Formats: sequence, structure tokens, C-alpha cells
Amino acid sequence: MAETVFSKIIRGEIPAKIVHDDEQCLAFHDISAQAPVHVLVIPKRPIESLEQLSASDAGLLGHIWTVIPQLARQLGVSESGYRVVVNCGRDGGQSVDHLHFHLLAGRPLKWPPG
Amino acid sequence: MAETVFSKIIRGEIPAKIVHDDEQCLAFHDISAQAPVHVLVIPKRPIESLEQLSASDAGLLGHIWTVIPQLARQLGVSESGYRVVVNCGRDGGQSVDHLHFHLLAGRPLKWPPG
Repeated sequence: MAETVFSKIIRGEIPAKIVHDDEQCLAFHDISAQAPVHVLVIPKRPIESLEQLSASDAGLLGHIWTVIPQLARQLGVSESGYRVVVNCGRDGGQSVDHLHFHLLAGRPLKWPPG
Repeated sequence: MAETVFSKIIRGEIPAKIVHDDEQCLAFHDISAQAPVHVLVIPKRPIESLEQLSASDAGLLGHIWTVIPQLARQLGVSESGYRVVVNCGRDGGQSVDHLHFHLLAGRPLKWPPG
């Protein structure tokens, strides 16, 4: 896959407001925030999109979904609530070809989700 | 946790247009579809929300995220793209207190996601 801006953030070559960092994933504030809290959670291993996931990634995905509620607590939005969004491909509106989970909070999220 | 409509769907007491059924999760068309394709993926075990997830659920979450891209292929939206959304709590707009993942596709999803 092509190099993305997220690879550069993982390597520390581009600054980011990092809120979580472990062996498997990284989380940082989205520079185009769509809500008072808008954080991206990404695997450190470059996976282009949901379409590239296989059964062997189950451990990684399980880990990410353990981190997301922890992040919500850390960011103080567990009680008020939040939305997690993943875009895949053209109709999904995926803008960076490195799998990323949007965590949005701090205002009531409307329906439909886009 | 309180009984929800999803428990009744899992037990087959309420009909649903089911598109995937395995030991750990069930997927069916949302009756309030917000896109030409709008399917809900739910764990069969009643988990109220993302907030109730713990590290012991990693296997389940990993499984669900293996099923989601398979479902996209099955529904014919892998190439056109799709969005996956999880709502948690009030600001997230969670409407049923049983963890569920929305898979939306078949039209360009807009940004912000609600």
C-alpha cells in the first residue's frame, strides 16, 4: 500500500496530539474535528481498510475495541456518550488509506450518520 | 440489563430479515433503514453498549470485525464502499440498549457523520 500521512504520524515525523499509544495502536486528535471531541484510533501496522482485514487480525481488532471505551473515559465522554465511525471505500467517504476509527463526542450526534 | 427487541429477534420471537447468523453474532436489515443497504450486526450475548466491553470480549469483537467485511461482500457493497457506525449513550444517539454495529451503504455517506 502507498505511504500515508498516518505512517508519518506513527513514526513521529509529523506532529499529532496523541492521546493513546501502545504496541498495537495509536490515537490522536483529528485535525479536521467534526465535534468537540474527535479522535482517530489507528492500528500501527498499515492496513489499508476494513476490506484488508482477515481472521488473523481478530486479536488486533479486539484490542482496538478495548481501547476505544478506555479512551472515552480518558477524554471524559463516557457518561455523555459518543459515536464510533469507520469509513470504507468511496461511498463510505474514506479519506486516508490506512484503517482508522473515528471517535466523536461532546455534542449530540445526529441521525442519519451522514 | 433490561430485555430489548434484539433479544426477541435473537430468539426468533420477532421476525427480521436475517443476512448472517453464527454462534456469536447475528446480522439483519434495520427496519428504519437510512441508506439503500442498512444492516445491524449484534453479538448474541446481551452486551448493553461499548461501555460494557472488557478485555475478555476481544475475541468476540475480533470476530464481529471479520464478519463485517464478509457481509459487505455478501451484500454487494465491498467495491462501492460502506460506513460502519456504533452509537454509545445519549450523545451517540444509542436507541437500543444492546450493542449493535450499523453497516450503511448504497449511497455516498456524507460528512460529518451526524
